[in-house]
Amino acid sequence: MDLNSDLGEGYGRWALGDDAALLGVVTSANVACGFHAGDPATIDRTVRTAVEHGVAVGAQVSYPDLVGFGRREMDVPAVELTADVLYQIGAVEAFAKAAGSRVRYVKPHGALYNRIARDPVQAAAVVAAIRRYDPALPLLTLPGSAAMEAAAEAGIRAVGEGFADRAYTGEGRLVSRREPGAVLHDPDRVAARARRMATEGRVETVDGGEVAVEVRSLCVHGDTPGAVELARAVRTALADAGVRLEAFA
Amino acid sequence: MDLNSDLGEGYGRWALGDDAALLGVVTSANVACGFHAGDPATIDRTVRTAVEHGVAVGAQVSYPDLVGFGRREMDVPAVELTADVLYQIGAVEAFAKAAGSRVRYVKPHGALYNRIARDPVQAAAVVAAIRRYDPALPLLTLPGSAAMEAAAEAGIRAVGEGFADRAYTGEGRLVSRREPGAVLHDPDRVAARARRMATEGRVETVDGGEVAVEVRSLCVHGDTPGAVELARAVRTALADAGVRLEAFA
Amino acid sequence: MDLNSDLGEGYGRWALGDDAALLGVVTSANVACGFHAGDPATIDRTVRTAVEHGVAVGAQVSYPDLVGFGRREMDVPAVELTADVLYQIGAVEAFAKAAGSRVRYVKPHGALYNRIARDPVQAAAVVAAIRRYDPALPLLTLPGSAAMEAAAEAGIRAVGEGFADRAYTGEGRLVSRREPGAVLHDPDRVAARARRMATEGRVETVDGGEVAVEVRSLCVHGDTPGAVELARAVRTALADAGVRLEAFA
Amino acid sequence: MDLNSDLGEGYGRWALGDDAALLGVVTSANVACGFHAGDPATIDRTVRTAVEHGVAVGAQVSYPDLVGFGRREMDVPAVELTADVLYQIGAVEAFAKAAGSRVRYVKPHGALYNRIARDPVQAAAVVAAIRRYDPALPLLTLPGSAAMEAAAEAGIRAVGEGFADRAYTGEGRLVSRREPGAVLHDPDRVAARARRMATEGRVETVDGGEVAVEVRSLCVHGDTPGAVELARAVRTALADAGVRLEAFA
Repeated sequence: MDLNSDLGEGYGRWALGDDAALLGVVTSANVACGFHAGDPATIDRTVRTAVEHGVAVGAQVSYPDLVGFGRREMDVPAVELTADVLYQIGAVEAFAKAAGSRVRYVKPHGALYNRIARDPVQAAAVVAAIRRYDPALPLLTLPGSAAMEAAAEAGIRAVGEGFADRAYTGEGRLVSRREPGAVLHDPDRVAARARRMATEGRVETVDGGEVAVEVRSLCVHGDTPGAVELARAVRTALADAGVRLEAFA
Repeated sequence: MDLNSDLGEGYGRWALGDDAALLGVVTSANVACGFHAGDPATIDRTVRTAVEHGVAVGAQVSYPDLVGFGRREMDVPAVELTADVLYQIGAVEAFAKAAGSRVRYVKPHGALYNRIARDPVQAAAVVAAIRRYDPALPLLTLPGSAAMEAAAEAGIRAVGEGFADRAYTGEGRLVSRREPGAVLHDPDRVAARARRMATEGRVETVDGGEVAVEVRSLCVHGDTPGAVELARAVRTALADAGVRLEAFA
Repeated sequence: MDLNSDLGEGYGRWALGDDAALLGVVTSANVACGFHAGDPATIDRTVRTAVEHGVAVGAQVSYPDLVGFGRREMDVPAVELTADVLYQIGAVEAFAKAAGSRVRYVKPHGALYNRIARDPVQAAAVVAAIRRYDPALPLLTLPGSAAMEAAAEAGIRAVGEGFADRAYTGEGRLVSRREPGAVLHDPDRVAARARRMATEGRVETVDGGEVAVEVRSLCVHGDTPGAVELARAVRTALADAGVRLEAFA
Repeated sequence: MDLNSDLGEGYGRWALGDDAALLGVVTSANVACGFHAGDPATIDRTVRTAVEHGVAVGAQVSYPDLVGFGRREMDVPAVELTADVLYQIGAVEAFAKAAGSRVRYVKPHGALYNRIARDPVQAAAVVAAIRRYDPALPLLTLPGSAAMEAAAEAGIRAVGEGFADRAYTGEGRLVSRREPGAVLHDPDRVAARARRMATEGRVETVDGGEVAVEVRSLCVHGDTPGAVELARAVRTALADAGVRLEAFA
């Protein structure tokens, strides 16, 4: 199992999240590319530190929306979206190359992540960028999403991602953050869910049942109080269960 | 001799310059990277068309200053400037790679070009980015500049650039655009100067003398009325003089 | 009848549209506020020239999207959208005040214009900004739109706008630009439609019928070839028909 | 004596400084205007809260440099700088007006503050914006600076600002932050200096002497650990010394 987290999400004077702590927890780093966060100097530091820690570097591509932190859906035409994704992958690749490594995967951020989970046009535009850049580069996304379908159609490897701290519906979808109970905060419970997703491929649903989720990577966070502790609890639970932690890419 | 020009300097809705015409004239395209001009979709089109025309793609790196078109000097600390240059090279590289080519050289734009002609700190910061990215990538810059010295010290190839339509001082420097007579507009005279720079390595100075200029590339423009005609006149004059036109990189 | 047009839509080095020509045609200038176009120096020039010509200055507020020219819908939460609109009105107001005038009305731009024609939440957010800034400031928008309803509810004056060069449906809506025949180019026909809208309050529909349109202002353009001629033809037709041209605000 | 501080310096997702605490300490709030920090929604909240606390609202105008937080000098031509300042004053004014107040003064930020302390051209450009906007609006700046001279020449009121936590030279200038001992951290010592500046108009210099400083406002910070405590210590020391705390504007 892989553990991924968003890193490098500061911007110039503004810091965000505890990158140093998370780099001791995760196996893959979704590095902000400058469109929702991540100025060049921050990307440089983040990529170098990730490479030093043996953490795989991914490009966390976004809509161009600094002020909205990439969390507001945008009707970006496909041609522009494909170019935006290519631009961002290349930008982060320069730092990975300078650090003796390379970009190992692409993970869309925020509103783009959610949009391409259901919008086949934008999903295909993101996938087209990957295919044009390097068809061997995997896309980290939601199992069963439009993005996963678009990747399959284009011959791009899609890697399923799970969220141990998010409630799931009976169809294996995430419950919207706007719903009560959508986000879990209890470290023991989150860790137990992570372990079960990793060892059995199943997760309890919001209505008390359970559902199969095919995930190769679990997402953990570092930008809220208690988040790093939660991430560590997940890592420990997986290690205790004998799950081997390694990047998927 | 190489002919280079700034290309892809539109931004979204805004167009600038006659790229299509210039691609029939030049051998090297300085492609805007998004910091002074050049949104991703424009970079994509520009790079693809350049590659189709067999024109070498260069990264025209700039200060982050869209509203000032990169023409205002900025006191960017070295660490940030190096990261800015890496970011921009990588961004354009993604499109070059997608088009089956690669970035062949780096040319700083506008105020950054002028600043590193005299400021060894910023010059070294730009050169450091090239060395970290790919030490084989040449830097296109002014003969005798601080940038050229910084490149030499770092073991980076520096390629001398000349301006057939700009007045030169007795020391082989460009006369400031603010001085009268700094820019020449007569196609015949500009073409004759280009021919002489290419065949004899000399140019007439503003005070009536002449000076040696070691140039491997001549810069032509396309963003003002009559500019494309001037560029064509230069190309024709060089061809008539038996000068072989080819990219330096 | 008022004639309005988008002005000041350049950005730094990039020019757009023939503002000088349009200022001789229109009675109201929708001045770009910096979010989709319009850097401060351009706003300054545009507002001063408009005031010199006796043309009313409006704030053409937009989503924050320079690279997309404000033409891409964004899911901006209401609180942020209200703040964005307040910010833009104030920015243009500073130049109007410095020129001895003031902002006379608000006209949303591009995707925001279209979005609030049908989305009551974003429409209310725009209207809330106007109410907080100055409840006497009118909103220029589409007759029958959600924006018009939101304005009515909030006690804000909404002014109906018509497009003599756009095809109308039987319900008095604009035919989408993606449909064939959505935009008319023949000056005589456009001028005739303008005259009829001004004198009879009616316009021919795309299916051969006609529909009532309650408009106090007609929008003309200056950013495409032939646009200024079209604008002049409209003005002449209205003048010939005895329609008095004056700003609504 | 007035106490001023930089407020509203977050940007979208990124927070900075303890605005809530500072609003209980200061009498004037330098509100970021969006060019170095301060998105519209943040400005809105900041201005409303300041007005609720009876704190005077100032426009903290900056170079357009989000990624550099306005801390990098830029060679902005005078015409552009004047327009940039007008734009920012107007933007903040909209929120002040909506909150039932108005912008009471202008304080340049970061590199612009330092630049106009010595550059008469940029100083005059900033002052020109104030004069065009409202000649009664005071400029908060360094005593003895080029900015103060430019204001005097233009008939604009300039208000002298002091820094109790910064070392002063014998000429009454600030010691550069790059020098050792430039910034003082001991609350008792800082508070004592503040009291002396307020009551005697003098401050101890870095070389052990003392110098007269004509200040009507003292600047305190909230964006570093311990900063708020320092600010409170200054306020308490002034109150204990019988100094009346009130906004200068």
